[in-house]
Amino acid sequence: MFYVIGLGLCDEKDITVRGLEAVKGSSRVYLEAYTSILMVQKEKLEEFYGRPVILADRDMVEQDSDSILKDADKEDVSFLVVGDPFGATTHSDLLLRARNLSIPTRVIHNASILNAIGTCGLQLYNFGQTVSLVFFTDTWKPDSFYDRIQENAHLGMHTLVLLDIKVKEQTIENLIKGRKIYEPPRYMSIPTAVSQLIEVEETRGGGILSPSTTLAIAVSRVGSQIDGGDGNGGEQRIVCGTLEELASQNSEVFGEPLHSLVIVGKRMHHLESEYAEVFAVDKENWRRVAREVYGVSFD
Amino acid sequence: MFYVIGLGLCDEKDITVRGLEAVKGSSRVYLEAYTSILMVQKEKLEEFYGRPVILADRDMVEQDSDSILKDADKEDVSFLVVGDPFGATTHSDLLLRARNLSIPTRVIHNASILNAIGTCGLQLYNFGQTVSLVFFTDTWKPDSFYDRIQENAHLGMHTLVLLDIKVKEQTIENLIKGRKIYEPPRYMSIPTAVSQLIEVEETRGGGILSPSTTLAIAVSRVGSQIDGGDGNGGEQRIVCGTLEELASQNSEVFGEPLHSLVIVGKRMHHLESEYAEVFAVDKENWRRVAREVYGVSFD
Repeated sequence: MFYVIGLGLCDEKDITVRGLEAVKGSSRVYLEAYTSILMVQKEKLEEFYGRPVILADRDMVEQDSDSILKDADKEDVSFLVVGDPFGATTHSDLLLRARNLSIPTRVIHNASILNAIGTCGLQLYNFGQTVSLVFFTDTWKPDSFYDRIQENAHLGMHTLVLLDIKVKEQTIENLIKGRKIYEPPRYMSIPTAVSQLIEVEETRGGGILSPSTTLAIAVSRVGSQIDGGDGNGGEQRIVCGTLEELASQNSEVFGEPLHSLVIVGKRMHHLESEYAEVFAVDKENWRRVAREVYGVSFD
Repeated sequence: MFYVIGLGLCDEKDITVRGLEAVKGSSRVYLEAYTSILMVQKEKLEEFYGRPVILADRDMVEQDSDSILKDADKEDVSFLVVGDPFGATTHSDLLLRARNLSIPTRVIHNASILNAIGTCGLQLYNFGQTVSLVFFTDTWKPDSFYDRIQENAHLGMHTLVLLDIKVKEQTIENLIKGRKIYEPPRYMSIPTAVSQLIEVEETRGGGILSPSTTLAIAVSRVGSQIDGGDGNGGEQRIVCGTLEELASQNSEVFGEPLHSLVIVGKRMHHLESEYAEVFAVDKENWRRVAREVYGVSFD
């Protein structure tokens, strides 16, 4: 059996009991380690599972899936994915390949940012399409996400914006020279995300994102229950305000990665606004914008 | 601590390791039992947890939350929810009330239909707003969901349609007479859902749902790994086709509840179509409609 198992959002204890049983019974255990990250190291997982864990990078998953699927028709192999297995297209591909090789497959679901984002107080049924925001470079500023945010905004829906992570990336020079030297991991911060959003708004001019009147909610380490104990903390954090309020926060306000951002849609209900308000940079301003710009009625 | 813990989609083993630890350390354990259902009985959960489980119905949660939250500032109390805690508004209310009483709260996330629906092969970022479809009666046919489907359809997005469940409902007569006599649970079937959708399309005439050219995917018991062993099975099942193909299936094709339906949006990618095709009632017709009506290119 080829198991694809969601690990949930945070650490080794977020796996389900069913998932843990499958891992413990597997002869090989892979961890997909490039579309997202857990907040714990591989060694911690190995200790918890009592099994060695093989890190599967993009090269291995996309070009050497045969080695991952090897003998999975005769023994159990587990492929672990942060969040839920269907968060990234790559995992559907792997399941399709297994299916084509007549290998039985089983998916064990878990929480992902796509449903856990409900923790910010906005109702999941008011969300439109999810978008991804990649790091801009001087020469590459892909902005098709803007069309999606615009579509959502026109319907008054919220947009979940997933922020880029760069793991095991090579410089262009190293890539050209074929040198397998990797840059340190980078995670997009909330202020960077907001400044990129504003940059695209200025180029495209759709009038959907305004620094002073668009409300947004930044979430950090959703689902994390770890107390960092170092003052910085590993606990989940929610911070909300206008785009410019979020952009002007010190990065310590958001803490360690991973971060995501929600752009609040105009259909916001007063209960959504009230739930989020306790996390606002400036509660009074949050409520004022909600009332005056979003038309939320608090009576 | 007041814990709100997602149980995932299927049975007692879908709880996370972290969730199980919280349950085992709680002095009282409630199970929310009216917005969704697990595929196991309360007794099975009690045996697995080694704890009595108190069923919390709508009356208790909405009118007697104080009894649920009692002493949660001094001891641990767990409130269990099928799927993820933020699947239903009720649970945000409960968290708000705890917060207002200065009771510390913690949410333990899990899979819900909103992310596990990825199992049907459609990419989650291509989904628009989720809608709920309630049982129509002769006099009550709420159709506001149609506007949401239409909005999604105009953008080419998929729509997840959650089908009504009626648990612990009273007849109007019993309600009026104040008799606490409850009807047996009812779960909307796929054919009923499709016929209600078509009925509303005929009334509203938006031209977005066509029996012969709108593709849809029915999913049953998402995440279920239980082998029913009775030929009918408890395992997850996916069946797809045009609306009329799904409506004409024998109910055994979909098996036991719970069922959900996805209306496929026009932005369908050929990889999405190919992934779903193995589940099609008529593979040839699925591919033909995908190509001719949806404009999917398979080359």
